[in-house]
Amino acid sequence: MESVELLEKLHRIDREYRHLEKASAVLQWDQETNLPPKGVEDRSEQLALLQGIAHERLTSAETGRLLTELGSGSDNPYGDEKLLPLERNFLNALRRNYDRAVKLPPDFVTASARAEGLSQAAWAQARRNNDFAAFLPHLKSMIDFARRKSAYWGFGDNGDRAQKNQTPYDGLLDIYEPGMSAADIGAVFGPLRDRLVSLLKKIKLCPPPDTGFLNQEYDTAQQARFNQRLTDYLGFDRNRGRLDVSAHPFTTSLGSDDVRITTRYFPHNLLSGIFSVIHESGHAFYEMGFPLELRGTCLADGASMAFHESQSRFWENIIGRSRPFWQGLFPILQTYFPEQLGRISPDAFYRAVNQVQPGLIRVDADEVSYALHIILRFELEKQLISGELEPEKLPAVWREYSCEYLGLASETDADGVLQDVHWSMGSFGYFPSYALGNLYGLQIAKKLRTDLPDFENAVSQGKFDEIRIWLGENIYRWGHRLSPADLLQKITGEKLSVNPFLDYIEAKYTELYGL
Amino acid sequence: MESVELLEKLHRIDREYRHLEKASAVLQWDQETNLPPKGVEDRSEQLALLQGIAHERLTSAETGRLLTELGSGSDNPYGDEKLLPLERNFLNALRRNYDRAVKLPPDFVTASARAEGLSQAAWAQARRNNDFAAFLPHLKSMIDFARRKSAYWGFGDNGDRAQKNQTPYDGLLDIYEPGMSAADIGAVFGPLRDRLVSLLKKIKLCPPPDTGFLNQEYDTAQQARFNQRLTDYLGFDRNRGRLDVSAHPFTTSLGSDDVRITTRYFPHNLLSGIFSVIHESGHAFYEMGFPLELRGTCLADGASMAFHESQSRFWENIIGRSRPFWQGLFPILQTYFPEQLGRISPDAFYRAVNQVQPGLIRVDADEVSYALHIILRFELEKQLISGELEPEKLPAVWREYSCEYLGLASETDADGVLQDVHWSMGSFGYFPSYALGNLYGLQIAKKLRTDLPDFENAVSQGKFDEIRIWLGENIYRWGHRLSPADLLQKITGEKLSVNPFLDYIEAKYTELYGL
Repeated sequence: MESVELLEKLHRIDREYRHLEKASAVLQWDQETNLPPKGVEDRSEQLALLQGIAHERLTSAETGRLLTELGSGSDNPYGDEKLLPLERNFLNALRRNYDRAVKLPPDFVTASARAEGLSQAAWAQARRNNDFAAFLPHLKSMIDFARRKSAYWGFGDNGDRAQKNQTPYDGLLDIYEPGMSAADIGAVFGPLRDRLVSLLKKIKLCPPPDTGFLNQEYDTAQQARFNQRLTDYLGFDRNRGRLDVSAHPFTTSLGSDDVRITTRYFPHNLLSGIFSVIHESGHAFYEMGFPLELRGTCLADGASMAFHESQSRFWENIIGRSRPFWQGLFPILQTYFPEQLGRISPDAFYRAVNQVQPGLIRVDADEVSYALHIILRFELEKQLISGELEPEKLPAVWREYSCEYLGLASETDADGVLQDVHWSMGSFGYFPSYALGNLYGLQIAKKLRTDLPDFENAVSQGKFDEIRIWLGENIYRWGHRLSPADLLQKITGEKLSVNPFLDYIEAKYTELYGL
Repeated sequence: MESVELLEKLHRIDREYRHLEKASAVLQWDQETNLPPKGVEDRSEQLALLQGIAHERLTSAETGRLLTELGSGSDNPYGDEKLLPLERNFLNALRRNYDRAVKLPPDFVTASARAEGLSQAAWAQARRNNDFAAFLPHLKSMIDFARRKSAYWGFGDNGDRAQKNQTPYDGLLDIYEPGMSAADIGAVFGPLRDRLVSLLKKIKLCPPPDTGFLNQEYDTAQQARFNQRLTDYLGFDRNRGRLDVSAHPFTTSLGSDDVRITTRYFPHNLLSGIFSVIHESGHAFYEMGFPLELRGTCLADGASMAFHESQSRFWENIIGRSRPFWQGLFPILQTYFPEQLGRISPDAFYRAVNQVQPGLIRVDADEVSYALHIILRFELEKQLISGELEPEKLPAVWREYSCEYLGLASETDADGVLQDVHWSMGSFGYFPSYALGNLYGLQIAKKLRTDLPDFENAVSQGKFDEIRIWLGENIYRWGHRLSPADLLQKITGEKLSVNPFLDYIEAKYTELYGL
């Protein structure tokens, strides 16, 4: 058979797999936004069935045969060198998905899914009861499953990407950040931690900005109206997406032209809803920006978890927490809340949304302390997987690190080691993405500002088209074709670096706090 | 293998088929209520794939083998007589679905689906352009496909039900109203037509009620708030369902505990939204009322299309267009629209919602003329399928019948023969369900009023629990187990009869119009 025919068959399998994944995503989106309370039982069964069928399609014997026939290497009649670059990328990505799926024995997948379900339920209860001991056996089980999963995959299995996975933890990182090892991450997280800790100490000595006006009541229906307006202001195309409300904000692609974001509204927290909308819009612009030739294929995806996070945080922080942004948007916000904000200046609002106040909870953290929450989790999960840290000692060590990094430690485990869901689901290796996203984001922003010197002026006028076009041409167009490291190199000409982020943070907060 | 094992395997196939159908229903519901305009292309492909997979599951060789092994008849080791009645009903229903699906050759299904797509598109355009000639070739093709479909199924193929299908049209009717032939329907539609035509002539001579207050503007957001309140008033359980907005009102079950209804709001038409909510609630109560032992099986369905319609029309007309109903609800409606309705009496409102005004459009018809629109379509589609009526002559014959039945005929085909979508989709045999539903509904209501003599008083107080319990015990509990004729017999002890409906209509409108 000609390679073009083999490829067409693989594309058909990939397309069907994607359609089934998107259909599942519709059911999940509906579950978070619309499902009547009692509908959850049937919905779980519908989802389990769809995901099972999707898995069958991806891991069928036919997929394996086609991938083998089209295998790389010069001993093969359809060797990679005869394929177009786009097709090579496609094959590599599909092979990677296929390998990940078939290398896990079905018994292991079932046992692991069951254990995750029990672990998550136990975690939720342990968090409510502040009872780490009750969660401990599940944490041990999740660590064990994670190690075995990484062993099944083998180390170094990441397609055409650099083969760096030396340890089980590297293998887990590779799920989220292909080609990135714990050593790579450690090399940037070290200086990041030291300079953030030092900056935080200085800020703590300064008087805080006035944020009293943020504590008033903001009608949630009015917040909802403003945030629909905000999506228009940002240029979110509602012919190709929606904004809805859910308990936890998220972005999901239900099709190439159906990208949905959610937010939530609290009567005494105006900022939560707004910054979730800006953050999720950044994810959505990425998803909406994949070019035609990638649509409906496994390449219509972000380069990595951290690259996706770089886009959401670029919009949330670099644009959304900037002075020019609020020069343009604040007068509009005032018309929605004249009583609460009528007498506040744009600059006072800008200062209030950038208040630095280290706390115990990651998801509430400001721009300066956020990365420290992540580095703490990275250090601890690395040691948990390697065995250096015994799970029994986790709460005590968590407090130690928290004191060292943030200058405070929780009395309760509920606000400490039990606060995040990730480990209870066995998602070790996920946390670093959040902080890496910030680093990528600032490296990208530095280049973007060079290419678009009018950046600040455009932001202050609410003109985001040129920015989005630049992001499209430099990032979105590549979809999932390149490794994050290769994409970063292509965009910025540089390797991962901590300096643009730290330069930005130090300059911004030196000015804000008059250090 | 023991029959219990074979049955368990069939139940598993049926369950998976249903889950896939429900997953499709989620995607369809979302398409009608939430889908961003440009998302429609991907959504169509997702739906086509899911429906294809569902079809594969249902028609697999395994299903056929299991059904044969469990086949009815005394020559079979697992003969029906060894099964419980519920399992016999299950097998019959599944066999019926399976037979319908496998008897159509795959090529025919594909060609028919493609032709339907083209036909529907051509119909939509022909209707816009008032151009019957442009639709004619598609109508001919739909008639041809319908005849062939009926021929593939063979006549008389309806499981354990009466084998009455003598003609191709009977075979099509059997899809929607199992066991009911054109002769059965003709026997009731004849007297129905005559007495309704005569009643209509008398009403036309009377002065119409005052309906001017209905022509004011009713804010649609306020209508939406009232209608959410209305669902509570009716006892619609929002833990097990939702009310949303779509272009055309509908009810859909996305799970045993997830039944959703939709309505629509027009600023100058208060009644459209309200009566759609009551109508769809009737469908939803039926869907929510199937007993535990039927849940998730092919028996968790209405007895027939007309039985489903009997439930929606029972709530819409017998309850919703009654004087006691508005005695209870009108004071609440007034609080939502004090300016428009503050000075109107409940009785004046009751009279206005029951205005009889024959028009050209079926979906806008009042209770008296509605059935005449249906009988007209039944007569014509029967002749189209048998070949007595040439499709070329349809517009002229339509006008003839319209004059005879309704006393008016449209100048345009757009408001005549092109007004409904059904024939453009090849759904011949569907229309009678609408009028049969009214007949069933009144036969059932007659029995219900005997069992619950306090009916009117309960309705006037907005107390619907006992009514719903009665409907549950007499109708919902049977799901799809019995043929409509058997179910009607079980509930009322009677065969299909036109008298309860005509007695109700004649008494109600004699009083309303002082005939």
